[in-house]
Amino acid sequence: MSEVRVDPNLARYASRASALRASEIRALFSVASRPEVVSLAGGMPDTAALDLDAVGSMLQTLMAEDGARALQYGGGQGDPELREQLCEVMAAEGIEARADDLVVTTGGQQALDLLAKMLCDPGDTVVAEGPSYVGALGAFQSYEAQVVHVPMDAEGMDPGQLEDVLAQLHREGRAPKMLYTVPSHQNPAGVSLSLERREQVIALAQRWDVLVVEDNPYGLLDFKGEHHPPLYTLDPTRVVYVGTLSKLFSPGIRVGWVMAPGALRDKLVQLKESADLCQSNLTQALAARWLRDQSWHDQIDRFRELYRNRCRALTDALAAEMPPGCDWSQPTGGLFVWARVPEGIDTGELLAKALTARVAYVPGRAFYADGSGARELRLNFSFCDEDRLREGVQRLAGVVTEELELRAAFGSQLGEDER
Amino acid sequence: MSEVRVDPNLARYASRASALRASEIRALFSVASRPEVVSLAGGMPDTAALDLDAVGSMLQTLMAEDGARALQYGGGQGDPELREQLCEVMAAEGIEARADDLVVTTGGQQALDLLAKMLCDPGDTVVAEGPSYVGALGAFQSYEAQVVHVPMDAEGMDPGQLEDVLAQLHREGRAPKMLYTVPSHQNPAGVSLSLERREQVIALAQRWDVLVVEDNPYGLLDFKGEHHPPLYTLDPTRVVYVGTLSKLFSPGIRVGWVMAPGALRDKLVQLKESADLCQSNLTQALAARWLRDQSWHDQIDRFRELYRNRCRALTDALAAEMPPGCDWSQPTGGLFVWARVPEGIDTGELLAKALTARVAYVPGRAFYADGSGARELRLNFSFCDEDRLREGVQRLAGVVTEELELRAAFGSQLGEDER
Repeated sequence: MSEVRVDPNLARYASRASALRASEIRALFSVASRPEVVSLAGGMPDTAALDLDAVGSMLQTLMAEDGARALQYGGGQGDPELREQLCEVMAAEGIEARADDLVVTTGGQQALDLLAKMLCDPGDTVVAEGPSYVGALGAFQSYEAQVVHVPMDAEGMDPGQLEDVLAQLHREGRAPKMLYTVPSHQNPAGVSLSLERREQVIALAQRWDVLVVEDNPYGLLDFKGEHHPPLYTLDPTRVVYVGTLSKLFSPGIRVGWVMAPGALRDKLVQLKESADLCQSNLTQALAARWLRDQSWHDQIDRFRELYRNRCRALTDALAAEMPPGCDWSQPTGGLFVWARVPEGIDTGELLAKALTARVAYVPGRAFYADGSGARELRLNFSFCDEDRLREGVQRLAGVVTEELELRAAFGSQLGEDER
Repeated sequence: MSEVRVDPNLARYASRASALRASEIRALFSVASRPEVVSLAGGMPDTAALDLDAVGSMLQTLMAEDGARALQYGGGQGDPELREQLCEVMAAEGIEARADDLVVTTGGQQALDLLAKMLCDPGDTVVAEGPSYVGALGAFQSYEAQVVHVPMDAEGMDPGQLEDVLAQLHREGRAPKMLYTVPSHQNPAGVSLSLERREQVIALAQRWDVLVVEDNPYGLLDFKGEHHPPLYTLDPTRVVYVGTLSKLFSPGIRVGWVMAPGALRDKLVQLKESADLCQSNLTQALAARWLRDQSWHDQIDRFRELYRNRCRALTDALAAEMPPGCDWSQPTGGLFVWARVPEGIDTGELLAKALTARVAYVPGRAFYADGSGARELRLNFSFCDEDRLREGVQRLAGVVTEELELRAAFGSQLGEDER
């Protein structure tokens, strides 16, 4: 049961973000998976909030009605019934989709991996928000692509900065293979691209002829009732849309999808088949039945309410506990708060102390390809209940405060030792 | 339900093997998925032979006992309990394995994809049996590796020919990145590497310092009671072992694995995380419980008996029905018969006629990277019952006979038209 507590991929994320070796980080996180540690680190939805008995009954019925097919191979593009149902999910986002344009993937992550494989040769350039989703950075880097970041503020990616980046790349003769973005309730920053900026970003992509990959895991997990149209709706010919059921239903079924124009879709099916032949028919059938037979809109409402309250508990606790000089985002939705500690503290180095104080987070450097983010960190609020979130923040605040006091007392020597 | 009848990846396989475009082949196979067509084409186990009610109950119990975890993210290496159980499966093959050396993958296919990604740069060389598993060829080619084939006979890959290939590559300065082999009940050839040859192959791999990738989906599906030791047991430091539950339990759960020495294993975990973060916790938990609580040895015995009888029905029908000049393998186990038609017939071109006659197969050229195999074809016997197998062979024999008669009557003109 230990795996439920800490994001299982955290060791890798953390190893990207600190001077420690992967094996040291793994050792740290095996400590971190103990029940007494409050993990603000993972990106896990609260699957205990699902109606597990209903899922159990659905699975039993599925086996009785269609078991031989559920346990059989499926097609490379994914189950047609599921693809129809996924169009309903996109309709809730304001997208008119056709099931034939979708390819089912192993979570959104596989969609990003296949897109990177299709589009990127070694040395190619990808433009992405800074900070950006660590799994996307990993996928791009595994094909030896270079990521150039565009800074963000409270309204998401800054179009002026995007324009500067695209112009600079043009001068350098580097045509970016894609602009990767999480416009809604971004991971890790917790902010959303405003409507005006969405239009500006698309206009820039058109002007500089850049393919946009829109990753939208959290669009429906909105806390403020401000739903913005997906970029896809602003230019369906230029935007490849990536979705997932991981945060709306379950990450354990590994059902994501990618929607792309015809020629790209055919190539993605081919790459999907080469990568793993096909998606699990069992989890696809479960997902299709869940979307067909369960009141999934209500379930998403429940998640949204749960996470909104937890987010408030986390940010209230940060306001009450953190020492001066810290700041953090005010999430518009999703699963994460993005925080910054005072100059001089390296969140990668601080992690060992935090784990000793029984609290875990992801150091900011994991979310940049260029080594930035030393003062930043990501805090998750979707998995722990409110009391544990407060407890976690208290511990974190204690560690940061202690570090600041230490630095105030021995600042110059510490600085010397580190050089 | 149409997807059950024909291997869903068949259109792609067939497009590799014929002059038709992928879209034309897809159109043909949408005809082929009609119930009146006997498919000898797919590689599907008979999942209807499983105790589906038992699986349904297991799933319901799993949800009740551990549902929140089953629907949650898992670790990149795979569920520790499942890895323990997979060691039991390997023990039945004669392998002493440690759970820590395993990485769970999305079927064996993902293991091959990750190995190719790890080992192969564009232009690199992979040595493989000819014919070889089409999915492996696809994975190698997706990383732009070049496949060099080693001919086979009734005892599997010919070590003399392997030595020639390795010596020739050495002279050309091409150090192969791996020797890919399915030593037991090979797909598509249906033959097994004899014990003596296993030792010779390993000795050659040692002498020429080649990494061996042993793909063993069918080892336990043996018809003759002649179990040969996996290559892994002959040199665990040189052999990367790939296994799967697709043919022993279910392909729809997408559970395979790869066992590799420490450094390779760590890199494979990293690539797995980058490819799709983690395996489905739900299907992993189901597999672990199936191996723990069900008498899986008995189920494998049932599959073995079922397929042995179907194999006999197929080969008996071939002997009774096929015209002179055809021959086929005598499978030692597994799922496939490999057949050859007389000179002059191209099985890729013949496919459209076969589908019109309501029988499907996979043309032989799909199983070679070098364009060979025009006279060959793969016939599956695991999915159809004996009556349908006989019916399918009758139709196939009719098509081949008609083609031979046509060629006898109009041979020279046909030849001219084709040029």
